[in-house]
Amino acid sequence: MQNFDYQNPTRILFGQGSIAKLAKAVPANARVLLLYGGGSALRNGTLDEVKAALATAGIGHVSEFSGIEPNPTFETLMRAVQQVKAEQIDFLLAVGGGSVIDGTKFVAAAAALPEGEDPWNILLTGGRVVKSALPFGSVLTLPATGSEMNNGGVITKAATHDKLPFSSRCTYPQFSVLDPTKTFTLPKRQVANGVVDAFVHITEQYLTYPANARVQDRFAEGLLRTLVEIGQDAVNKPEDYDTRANLMWTATLALNGLIGAGVPQDWATHMIGHELTALHGIDHARTLAVVLPAVMQVRREEKRAKLLQYAERVWDIRDGSEDARIDQAIERTRAFFESLEVPTRLSAYQLDATAIDPLVAQLEKHGMVKLGEKQDINLETSRHILQAAL
Amino acid sequence: MQNFDYQNPTRILFGQGSIAKLAKAVPANARVLLLYGGGSALRNGTLDEVKAALATAGIGHVSEFSGIEPNPTFETLMRAVQQVKAEQIDFLLAVGGGSVIDGTKFVAAAAALPEGEDPWNILLTGGRVVKSALPFGSVLTLPATGSEMNNGGVITKAATHDKLPFSSRCTYPQFSVLDPTKTFTLPKRQVANGVVDAFVHITEQYLTYPANARVQDRFAEGLLRTLVEIGQDAVNKPEDYDTRANLMWTATLALNGLIGAGVPQDWATHMIGHELTALHGIDHARTLAVVLPAVMQVRREEKRAKLLQYAERVWDIRDGSEDARIDQAIERTRAFFESLEVPTRLSAYQLDATAIDPLVAQLEKHGMVKLGEKQDINLETSRHILQAAL
Repeated sequence: MQNFDYQNPTRILFGQGSIAKLAKAVPANARVLLLYGGGSALRNGTLDEVKAALATAGIGHVSEFSGIEPNPTFETLMRAVQQVKAEQIDFLLAVGGGSVIDGTKFVAAAAALPEGEDPWNILLTGGRVVKSALPFGSVLTLPATGSEMNNGGVITKAATHDKLPFSSRCTYPQFSVLDPTKTFTLPKRQVANGVVDAFVHITEQYLTYPANARVQDRFAEGLLRTLVEIGQDAVNKPEDYDTRANLMWTATLALNGLIGAGVPQDWATHMIGHELTALHGIDHARTLAVVLPAVMQVRREEKRAKLLQYAERVWDIRDGSEDARIDQAIERTRAFFESLEVPTRLSAYQLDATAIDPLVAQLEKHGMVKLGEKQDINLETSRHILQAAL
Repeated sequence: MQNFDYQNPTRILFGQGSIAKLAKAVPANARVLLLYGGGSALRNGTLDEVKAALATAGIGHVSEFSGIEPNPTFETLMRAVQQVKAEQIDFLLAVGGGSVIDGTKFVAAAAALPEGEDPWNILLTGGRVVKSALPFGSVLTLPATGSEMNNGGVITKAATHDKLPFSSRCTYPQFSVLDPTKTFTLPKRQVANGVVDAFVHITEQYLTYPANARVQDRFAEGLLRTLVEIGQDAVNKPEDYDTRANLMWTATLALNGLIGAGVPQDWATHMIGHELTALHGIDHARTLAVVLPAVMQVRREEKRAKLLQYAERVWDIRDGSEDARIDQAIERTRAFFESLEVPTRLSAYQLDATAIDPLVAQLEKHGMVKLGEKQDINLETSRHILQAAL
């Protein structure tokens, strides 16, 4: 096991009816700004429920900021920062999915920067300039990214299409409310994307090389098996409470730091996927479903031991030669994603071999020349991965 | 899944050499009291390493309190509280196992009580009178109880033999240092006890009834399988770093709140075991090894579904009738404990049927008349459990 430094202070209020617990979780006398996205939180009643809970707590000042985009932009969020300052807001409450929560983290950090510090530096330094942040919580409506229980966010500058991550010890939510019934009205496509997103968050921390981290492996395998078991029902039975509850908790644990503590990590699938979103507008999770099977295929030697363990412990594949078992595990992964109506080939997006050069050029431009758990995925290997994804 | 409210703010500094990180984890200018037990931390050099790290950090005031007992007593700990006040200590650092850390939690809470509040009320109220506590951290030397990453403690009043638990949101360690090399010098018996203690912490939160909490089940099973895989080597190969690392992290995760969130819990094995310690002085973990197989046997109908799941997922038992599979799972559990030289029968302690009446009387005296996940283990059922443990 590798040495690690793990801490996650976020409080999780889980279950049907938990929005009412906001009354205790938000500090009395807080001046609260609710942040949300395109209006689904408004239409499905979640926002009203949140406001009712805050009213019960006697919280006097509650204002709103709407319109945080699916890939939240610096420009939009800086308007929220202005509102925070103008209204002397001292507590932020995100109501939405990963984009709204990521955006709220940025607002919390930007609003607390010292005078004279350019908020864009938060992104240029990956969060290192963040020394404090406004306290904030979240009410999660879309299980997928894990942002509700970690300290990271990804923000885009609309003007330049720069998309940059940041994180800080100061940007963990104080609490997150996870009420599975708030996911019942989600479109199928978003739920399927959420299942795939969580799945690949886990494999990025698991499908590397053995590090004698037995518990982390077992936890990752348990999360993956759970997604395989519930994936179909999660998409197709929107009001099956227990299934949605298991999806919600699995997606949170997939990226809250626990399974990644003490083990090598990969993240090549994400980095290559990001370029597919940037150049072709493919949903984030859908890019991962295309890239992951190709990464498994191209990196089968480097990942051999863990791929065999994955085959056995996640898919119960025990018979046949090593290569046959690995082939079968890749095929099962692909079939799982396809069963959720998430394609696993570039051809599904009308992309052929001519798409590869521009994608590799973007990777080079963004400095993505040493990817993978051993930083040995260079541009040539990324090209092979994209070819295997055609 | 049941609703839950989960938070665990403790920072874990894990791995060989992590004691050096104390220099960053303890606040600069702190006035520190080191608390430890019977001197093993002194003899094996851990205490010197801790003091060297604090000296590197330039921490001026570092004093010591030694002699915290295996079952820490109110009387001893109140002397530590006096020292805290006399020296205006503002940070506590526990160096030891669960007893030292439990005791430090009590000192942290007692030292911060308002004037006029009797510290014994901390225990009489289970911690409800605790509204603040001194900050504290720990350096763990014995993987077993999980105290290093939870907020609970058990304290004994020597004068009356009362042994009472408490917990509070204020009594999580700020950090715990887990360096597996610091366990290399432990006696075999303590390591074996630690394996059993962690094992039963997990089963108390797992072997109940199905609650459709798939992740919690998978995590519990992953921890149990890990203990089964490493138990022998953990005891017999004291300097096998990876084995001790896996034991240490498993024992911590066994009782940090995570696997118990959203599921029913039992704890009957612990409650019955406590009386065996009180009346016969049997090590805590050793009482659990005697009681758990008997609980599985006597409660096989109530726990049937989970016992079958346990048989399959922890022990790979898939063939035979349901009852045959359960019998085999109980037998494998017993054999595992015995393989660590931890007996699983009262007869190993020269106790026969005449011991049962006094044990049942103690349970009654302590109000332990409704135990188990459905509070339906009455005194008669406890008697059957003790009979099955003969």
